[in-house]
Amino acid sequence: MSKKTIPIVKKIMSANDQIAEENQELLSKKKILTVNVMASPGAGKTSLILRTIENISTQYKIAVIEGDTAPVTIDSDKISSLNIPVVQINTGGECHLDALMVRNGIEQLDLSNTDLLIIENVGNLVCPAAFRLGEHFSVVIASIPEGDDKPYKYPNIYRGIQSLILNKTDLLPYVDFNIDYFKKGIEALNPGAAFFSLSCKTGDGFDKWTNWLKTKIQEIK
Amino acid sequence: MSKKTIPIVKKIMSANDQIAEENQELLSKKKILTVNVMASPGAGKTSLILRTIENISTQYKIAVIEGDTAPVTIDSDKISSLNIPVVQINTGGECHLDALMVRNGIEQLDLSNTDLLIIENVGNLVCPAAFRLGEHFSVVIASIPEGDDKPYKYPNIYRGIQSLILNKTDLLPYVDFNIDYFKKGIEALNPGAAFFSLSCKTGDGFDKWTNWLKTKIQEIK
Repeated sequence: MSKKTIPIVKKIMSANDQIAEENQELLSKKKILTVNVMASPGAGKTSLILRTIENISTQYKIAVIEGDTAPVTIDSDKISSLNIPVVQINTGGECHLDALMVRNGIEQLDLSNTDLLIIENVGNLVCPAAFRLGEHFSVVIASIPEGDDKPYKYPNIYRGIQSLILNKTDLLPYVDFNIDYFKKGIEALNPGAAFFSLSCKTGDGFDKWTNWLKTKIQEIK
Repeated sequence: MSKKTIPIVKKIMSANDQIAEENQELLSKKKILTVNVMASPGAGKTSLILRTIENISTQYKIAVIEGDTAPVTIDSDKISSLNIPVVQINTGGECHLDALMVRNGIEQLDLSNTDLLIIENVGNLVCPAAFRLGEHFSVVIASIPEGDDKPYKYPNIYRGIQSLILNKTDLLPYVDFNIDYFKKGIEALNPGAAFFSLSCKTGDGFDKWTNWLKTKIQEIK
């Protein structure tokens, strides 16, 4: 019997992870920094995207993939009104985006003309944590009125992220929110995550986020 | 060949629906009004439950089933501190409660000594909509800072409910929220739902909710 080479599979990837890796390879090759934005409904995902566009779209070409559970174009219309290419993915009731949906979204975009791709995930603090999309980094937006105990109650979504935004700081005077307790929860789960507290409404603290994002866009070039 | 009776299955139920129906039958037999409380993370589920307990627990015996994705007892401890029987269900990362989890929870409670069972679902505006638990009615809590477009963006969860609470009305002066637009969205999906706007923090509007709930408790007796 001749000696045979036994194939060794180093890591069994799920179908989703495999497509996510292909997405990321393509986006890296095209030098498009890709961000997966996750949050509860109403924490400010679209507001963050809109203000980010307003702040940096004169310097960088931005495209957006919008994930929605329902076929409504409320968020996509707002982004499109700023003359930004946007693809809406209707998940048909599904609670998260997956890598295949994002691949289908990417195919609709002009990749040769994009520096930054922002993916707005479905508003959900549980399910999107389990699905990589092909992003270079992910950001979770928490918001002041949601309360300071969320990292303790929804730990999974905070574990894998590279950056965290604490939004709606303009509401701090009217809500009981202990920032130290909140940050302690994040640091226990994810000590290295970049942290930005800001208000998408007033713009307070927003520059630190966009400066950090611009550095990331440059790094991939 | 003898004539055989052919069994006709009227409705194919999912395993979850079947257990939910069994739960509801048991709870109806025991005359325990059972409420499934659903909302985004941080909309005020626990706050609603705590204030409801404070307002009506001298008149009615209350028990609580707490659904959490993580093994933390932050909410259960608050309820337990009011001397209310509470069972915590840790979903192990799952994004919703199901009827089997609730059946296991019910087994831990003294059903002969309960008028009202409140089930706090996992904080999620998508997945819990698809899983009946055995409740007599469900309530969704929306909150002012989440924004007025949520019924349009997350329609499924508003469709099957019997009552809707709009919480955090104390934040109305500081947030852009069009109540008419919000209510129009709800009414398009679910014209008959009872609607309560209130603040769990200040107690403003809370009596209307508890009066309605007390009527429901009486109806099942």
